Amino acid sequence: MAGSDIKYTDGGVCAPNGFRAAGTACGIKGTKEKKDLALIVSDVMCSAAAVYTTNKVKGAPLKVTKDNIADGRAIAIICNSGNANTCAPNGEALAGKTCELTAESLGVKAQDIVVCSTGVIGQELSIEPFREGIPELTAGLSYEGSAEAAEAIMTTDTVPKEVAVEFTIDGRLCRIGGIAKGSGMINPNMATMLSFITTDVCISPDVLDRVLKEDVKTSYNQICVDGDTSTNDMTVILANGMAGNDIIDGDGEALDVFRRALSQVTVYLAKRLARDGEGATKLIECRVKGAADDEQARAISKSVIASDLLKAAMFGADANWGRVLCAIGYAPGEFSTENVDVDMSSSAGTVEVCRGSRHKEYSEEEASKILSEEEIIISVDMHQGSGSGVAWGCDLTYDYVKINGDYRS
Amino acid sequence: MAGSDIKYTDGGVCAPNGFRAAGTACGIKGTKEKKDLALIVSDVMCSAAAVYTTNKVKGAPLKVTKDNIADGRAIAIICNSGNANTCAPNGEALAGKTCELTAESLGVKAQDIVVCSTGVIGQELSIEPFREGIPELTAGLSYEGSAEAAEAIMTTDTVPKEVAVEFTIDGRLCRIGGIAKGSGMINPNMATMLSFITTDVCISPDVLDRVLKEDVKTSYNQICVDGDTSTNDMTVILANGMAGNDIIDGDGEALDVFRRALSQVTVYLAKRLARDGEGATKLIECRVKGAADDEQARAISKSVIASDLLKAAMFGADANWGRVLCAIGYAPGEFSTENVDVDMSSSAGTVEVCRGSRHKEYSEEEASKILSEEEIIISVDMHQGSGSGVAWGCDLTYDYVKINGDYRS
Repeated sequence: MAGSDIKYTDGGVCAPNGFRAAGTACGIKGTKEKKDLALIVSDVMCSAAAVYTTNKVKGAPLKVTKDNIADGRAIAIICNSGNANTCAPNGEALAGKTCELTAESLGVKAQDIVVCSTGVIGQELSIEPFREGIPELTAGLSYEGSAEAAEAIMTTDTVPKEVAVEFTIDGRLCRIGGIAKGSGMINPNMATMLSFITTDVCISPDVLDRVLKEDVKTSYNQICVDGDTSTNDMTVILANGMAGNDIIDGDGEALDVFRRALSQVTVYLAKRLARDGEGATKLIECRVKGAADDEQARAISKSVIASDLLKAAMFGADANWGRVLCAIGYAPGEFSTENVDVDMSSSAGTVEVCRGSRHKEYSEEEASKILSEEEIIISVDMHQGSGSGVAWGCDLTYDYVKINGDYRS
Repeated sequence: MAGSDIKYTDGGVCAPNGFRAAGTACGIKGTKEKKDLALIVSDVMCSAAAVYTTNKVKGAPLKVTKDNIADGRAIAIICNSGNANTCAPNGEALAGKTCELTAESLGVKAQDIVVCSTGVIGQELSIEPFREGIPELTAGLSYEGSAEAAEAIMTTDTVPKEVAVEFTIDGRLCRIGGIAKGSGMINPNMATMLSFITTDVCISPDVLDRVLKEDVKTSYNQICVDGDTSTNDMTVILANGMAGNDIIDGDGEALDVFRRALSQVTVYLAKRLARDGEGATKLIECRVKGAADDEQARAISKSVIASDLLKAAMFGADANWGRVLCAIGYAPGEFSTENVDVDMSSSAGTVEVCRGSRHKEYSEEEASKILSEEEIIISVDMHQGSGSGVAWGCDLTYDYVKINGDYRS
């Protein structure tokens, strides 16, 4: 019987039964000090699904991965950081070779490998570091290896992102785990940045694919750091069935529980990605209600957190609701902006700044105190329906400029 | 007989025959030191046309102006800076009253007045400063008053923007002049920031309207400072016919000359607006050729100059073509990105950085020297058609963050 609380747990991508992971420094980043190669392996074959960037410029690994999981099956994920293998010579051949080396090392088929890369665009990537790195990685595989893998996929991230949840389906204990990386070049569209999700739930490839595509609409697609949709964004999920539940191959309570648990994982990671945006000092969440429908609410919330002017105002702890309204007004879609309410809140309290699209008296001092916290919530009521949505972003700071004026990425 | 060189000349909006202008400080900006009220008046009635922001949140003045020039006629423009009269109580009544006061002072009809406001959103605007300011303004009207008016419409602009051109139609000497303001909150869409254009050419309202709507597609709509489409963007053009040419009321050589002259004015102003973007140290121009069509080329060029990562790279004088390709890839539309060339140039030279979507060897030192100039051109060849387009923007700097973290605008 499905239905249970969903609780956070340890272990990241290794929390679900039957997944090992590892991370190593193989030299792509130019130093043995920085991990740059990650591996996640299931004990048994998995149902697999992925969503990819909609940028027309796609990293070579995306094409190879898409081919490999066309049959809905995969057993491992190999990922390097430091070089995106995008707009680089022989990219697809190299990504293919990476799969072969990994498959050989694991004793599996190359077509069952998911391959990813993240880092600088346009620089040639050599296969040499992989030749030594992959065996090293395989030798280091562990059921406690998630943290290493999370570290090895980082580029300008300041912290690794990792989470896991547990819940029950049919009385069986199930888990979903995930790691992610992002930071700059974050404005996912129809895809995500790099995120690897594992689960021991038994689920068919078709349903898994459907659930993932649906999920990203309210998680990864609702974050923005700087409006640049990357060339390499990808979210991959592997489900190995080792929890032993009856296979989920259609709608029902089991699927509902799985959806909610997956959402808890992806939303957690999405928020961490937004909070760790390049140069960010604050997580900004925009909650919209009262829109015509949920899709409209999501579009509005995303427009707000993506606005450079709003992001800069948040950096300055300035309750500039005019910029919020401006961003609402240029969100795609046809809707009224005549009766909009805006509140701004944090752990330090709430300030009501706009009612009916007009100024509401508030204390600048109070507002400044509230907006000086690290997590800000901008609440918007559009008063024209029951649609709701949430989006996450971060403030625009001097450090964003510094990082991106200097970092060849 | 039409057809002639188009030459720059002095006088701004007063260059065309029969236009006077003035600017004064009436207290809206809180000090008599800063001009905040501008007036442009024609000796005789004009054909009038305007394009407006597509932001669903529209400043009150836009609605009043739209009504007033529905008949294609106007005789004067009154504009205040310091307060956008947007999302403020009684906004439309106040804008209407402004027209009445101006009309009374000039001895004309209120419905023939164009009214505009620019500045902070959400703060109530009082009619009191206008009561004294308008008579002062009228008393100060002069055929040399363009510079004063240009100054009075500024908000965070660091320099006034003003230009005029002269040319001949039917052997008659004609002029077009313009002033503009912008700086932050610049991402015009289907409209422009504040720009006032005057001409003494004789032209019908319908044709004038058509020409203006067409013109902004390749001028004001092709600039971006920070991606925020303002609530108050407007371009207005007044044509008083005092050049004495045969009325332009359809296609032909006379219209062609007028179009080219108008484009020279609006492109000049658009570039100045981009260059004076908040915190900017550089003008960035992106020229695209080889696209499927002109519209696609324009979309691609605009995507490039609007990218925060690209803008930051330009600030750092970093020839990061990967970010150019990324921005090309997420521009709207379906097109190939397999064979893209990118050059970067300035007065210091040209560096070829990408050929066929792959790295081309170049000297980092040379590139850095070239990109340290104040005007950068990024040239893109898409190799799949004959469409071309241009867009303008500026670099993303620490000062943008500083200005917008502190400025209540």
